[in-house]
Amino acid sequence: MIDVEEAHRILQHRVEPGPVTDVPLREAYYRTLAAQVCCDADYPPFDRSVMDGFAVRAADTVGAPVMLQVVGQVAAGATPGQRLATGEAIQINTGAPIPPGADAVVRVEDTEPCASGRGLRVRKAVDPGQFITPRGAYGRAGQAVLEPGAILTPINVGVAATAGAARVSVYRPVTAAILATGDELVDIDRRPSGGQIRNSNVYLLDALFASAHVLAERLSVVRDERDAIRGRVEEGLRFDVLCITGGVSMGAFDFVPEILRHLNVDLWIEKMAIKPGRPVIVGRAPSGCLVFALPGNPMSAFVGFELLVRPALAALEGRRDGAPVPVPAVLRGSLGSTGNRRSYLPARARFNEQGRWEARPLEWHGSGDSLGGANANALVMRPPGSPPAGDGDRVEVLVLPGH
Amino acid sequence: MIDVEEAHRILQHRVEPGPVTDVPLREAYYRTLAAQVCCDADYPPFDRSVMDGFAVRAADTVGAPVMLQVVGQVAAGATPGQRLATGEAIQINTGAPIPPGADAVVRVEDTEPCASGRGLRVRKAVDPGQFITPRGAYGRAGQAVLEPGAILTPINVGVAATAGAARVSVYRPVTAAILATGDELVDIDRRPSGGQIRNSNVYLLDALFASAHVLAERLSVVRDERDAIRGRVEEGLRFDVLCITGGVSMGAFDFVPEILRHLNVDLWIEKMAIKPGRPVIVGRAPSGCLVFALPGNPMSAFVGFELLVRPALAALEGRRDGAPVPVPAVLRGSLGSTGNRRSYLPARARFNEQGRWEARPLEWHGSGDSLGGANANALVMRPPGSPPAGDGDRVEVLVLPGH
Repeated sequence: MIDVEEAHRILQHRVEPGPVTDVPLREAYYRTLAAQVCCDADYPPFDRSVMDGFAVRAADTVGAPVMLQVVGQVAAGATPGQRLATGEAIQINTGAPIPPGADAVVRVEDTEPCASGRGLRVRKAVDPGQFITPRGAYGRAGQAVLEPGAILTPINVGVAATAGAARVSVYRPVTAAILATGDELVDIDRRPSGGQIRNSNVYLLDALFASAHVLAERLSVVRDERDAIRGRVEEGLRFDVLCITGGVSMGAFDFVPEILRHLNVDLWIEKMAIKPGRPVIVGRAPSGCLVFALPGNPMSAFVGFELLVRPALAALEGRRDGAPVPVPAVLRGSLGSTGNRRSYLPARARFNEQGRWEARPLEWHGSGDSLGGANANALVMRPPGSPPAGDGDRVEVLVLPGH
Repeated sequence: MIDVEEAHRILQHRVEPGPVTDVPLREAYYRTLAAQVCCDADYPPFDRSVMDGFAVRAADTVGAPVMLQVVGQVAAGATPGQRLATGEAIQINTGAPIPPGADAVVRVEDTEPCASGRGLRVRKAVDPGQFITPRGAYGRAGQAVLEPGAILTPINVGVAATAGAARVSVYRPVTAAILATGDELVDIDRRPSGGQIRNSNVYLLDALFASAHVLAERLSVVRDERDAIRGRVEEGLRFDVLCITGGVSMGAFDFVPEILRHLNVDLWIEKMAIKPGRPVIVGRAPSGCLVFALPGNPMSAFVGFELLVRPALAALEGRRDGAPVPVPAVLRGSLGSTGNRRSYLPARARFNEQGRWEARPLEWHGSGDSLGGANANALVMRPPGSPPAGDGDRVEVLVLPGH
């Protein structure tokens, strides 16, 4: 049995980043950069007005109020041709380029038009450079604005767009397949009869992959027959990641481990010292496909995904930050003692007014219970051999992304 | 000028949830439930084995080790027909239905097969009910498992799937349009010349909508001409939400407020007491469309989206939780004093080993700087008239979803 830290070390050392690709920025949301994004020019590319008002020579405003002559206007987007002479003002918009000859901007609210035609009364003196952003103030041509490993979150998408990165170099989106095994599974729109249960795990896993910005393919359910499973597993090995659910405990019909060995999958992990979710398989096929076999119980599959699959997906995109980091929290409610495995319990966490995380365990009856855990956004993590814990005790929680 | 609390009150009172629709579960990820999800049957639907092992009569195991006769097997998914008699055992898999006559399960590891054919040596006595999950233990037919207002996160998708919700009743996805105005804007794949700048805001806003699980349509850039803007605004009013960027300060070419009034948009907010982002317009058109006009400066647009648009999107899906909640954090670095508006500064926040949020302001030169703020995942929020703050001081931050 392997513990969680060891599993994360294994994933960190053995999972290599996948191939890199160039995509249009709009298709790259939440992808991970594989190369720097650099300014393609100075930013701003010209001396720019910060305000709506009038471009002037600062020297002309000394001793304000003063009268100036409005000789033109320059809107945002315009190329200013007209040169400003002493005693003149040019009307200017926020974001517009400063006309040559001008060295400051007077805000429109600090001026008033004169009755007599083009005259402008400036009420307040300005210093040279006032309300002007000099060319290159925010970034110089060639300067890096985003580093490899950065995720293209909305703010970073905006930064990349400003820098002119119409296409970006990112790690290729991971391809993933989900394969559910089990004679007892029926689709969720069918009413289970006899010993059947619904194939809810493919939905859970599909939604989990989606939360990690991976579009997964669902291979059809396989009956618990060796050849059928083997055929579908082989199909799944053409993806970057194959996630098998069900069929990994020690029952007579659980062919998955044997089939994986037969297909020369290098098994890195065969059992985890966690509860729920002990029977977990992690390995790599000769094709390079990362294979995860997660238990059929939904909460076990959920925990296995968060602890193992999500960090692996991050590593495939060149990131080392995929493993959930435990944070201290105040327990609300109570918990029993734990056995010899690290245990994970679904909980609702919130950041309270005292500036602490607070976690309330949710009703959940153990690994077979796939209705418990609704609305979970965190897992309370308890070390092996933990004593019972009561309201107000300190516990550790994993706050889950995408929940 | 309206402050943030007042703005949130306005949105809470005036934004009504949109229409409700029935969609397949797989198309409902991250949508908000408009109706309960209830179990369509008892769950589990039958007495079920928790372990791989043998179904037995508990009474037969008293005084173990004992010998039993294996008379059959029942796999997960099977309908158990065979009745168990005294002295008999039936091989059973995890998840399989308990055969009639049996009242407990012996784990496979507590047994050993006998040399002589079908004999089974049971090493450990079991109590009645041992390793059996009774029918309905996790949920009864008709019992609610998810309430209206719950978001279909991955764990909730799994719960809904288990309960048989092949289709779910959710608030219809919001439709949104983004309209950028400004003569100075060129597309991001073009090199700006003269006074031009890149139209990065549509990418920023598009990515922000995507992070809120809203697919936005980008209307083409409009030149700063009254009729052109008006035509495009009218087009945008056919969506649930129209987000205009640029054209809301007091320059000669900023026709947007006037056009909105002309189109009978009921203006709820025309200026916010925030920095950056003061010139913000929020209102509702006669069509029902919510209109947001955000400043053209990227950070201002970003702050406006997080403070106003994201909460409105939540309210349109029947949720009251969209407004970002400030949390206390330890400042890393230093900040100057603030003026008479509440100010927001891009920062990188992390939850530290001492169990506290820690926020480091990012390099950012003020509202015109769209390269600063890269990698922000939070905004430091400072009340009007705040004094300078130093390393270790307590500040309030908004930790941003989707970053």
